[in-house]
Amino acid sequence: MQSLQQKASEWSGVKQEDAFAIDDVNLFDKLGLQTFINLSTDFYTRVYDDEEEWFRSIFADSKKEDAIQNQYVQRMGGPPLYSQRKGHPALIGRHRPFPVTHKAAERWLQHMQQALDNATDIDHDSKTRMLNFFRHTAYFLVAGNDLKNESHGTPPCKHGDDKPAAV
Amino acid sequence: MQSLQQKASEWSGVKQEDAFAIDDVNLFDKLGLQTFINLSTDFYTRVYDDEEEWFRSIFADSKKEDAIQNQYVQRMGGPPLYSQRKGHPALIGRHRPFPVTHKAAERWLQHMQQALDNATDIDHDSKTRMLNFFRHTAYFLVAGNDLKNESHGTPPCKHGDDKPAAV
Repeated sequence: MQSLQQKASEWSGVKQEDAFAIDDVNLFDKLGLQTFINLSTDFYTRVYDDEEEWFRSIFADSKKEDAIQNQYVQRMGGPPLYSQRKGHPALIGRHRPFPVTHKAAERWLQHMQQALDNATDIDHDSKTRMLNFFRHTAYFLVAGNDLKNESHGTPPCKHGDDKPAAV
Repeated sequence: MQSLQQKASEWSGVKQEDAFAIDDVNLFDKLGLQTFINLSTDFYTRVYDDEEEWFRSIFADSKKEDAIQNQYVQRMGGPPLYSQRKGHPALIGRHRPFPVTHKAAERWLQHMQQALDNATDIDHDSKTRMLNFFRHTAYFLVAGNDLKNESHGTPPCKHGDDKPAAV
């Protein structure tokens, strides 16, 4: 059985080492907070203005201003802004209420690609690292979404290489 | 409806700001990798020698040597060792195959408390920060475990304050 990260790599076409090449550079130090705010503002403007109702509805319970609060700066070397507000990112758990399908992932990525294309304050190398990370992560969440369709018995079941982190 | 982190705070008795006081100090820089390896080795020795079969069985599919690989150094200011191997921690998603009950959380914490008590290379302040983090996180995962018992319809449902991180 394929693990979550194997599925993410296969479906996204991004190898794990390329996705986590964001860790080879501190992108927050390199780019600064304002650049992340600019990117999030552009991205969420596209999301909330999306012509597809099914996609907009995924975000309908969040205010755009809250969504813009740059949660991924924490993962890209910045201060733990997300954890201060909300605790662990717990990406799969927190996306559980939403239909994170291949189609939704592609639409999310299309908006992010356009926001990155539009960003004049981000260099080409950083854009590549960020897009690889987002692309791999989007499909990691599609793989996580598929867990909802699996049965969950009480005894611990074999689960590929997806052993829990040691916390 | 209570959010995951509200449940974690209520059930653990640890406020969110106390749990994430690990971010006020870089514990990895302060303590060094060997200290984390020592702690993990002591902790997992206790786990794999646990007299309770139901608890040991949760870890039966992992080798002790793999379990010791210190995944939480990444969250405590260290290098991204976990992500290099496995990608996103995705704490709730990756614990999904396991029965993370109140009882299991308390037993995990009892072993960690004893391992911390036994550690002569960790100062009192760091022990307090770490135990608050582990205690809050254990109950965050108990709250995550409860999601398995909720129905999951297709349309996005109200879910307290557990909005997804902006990735």
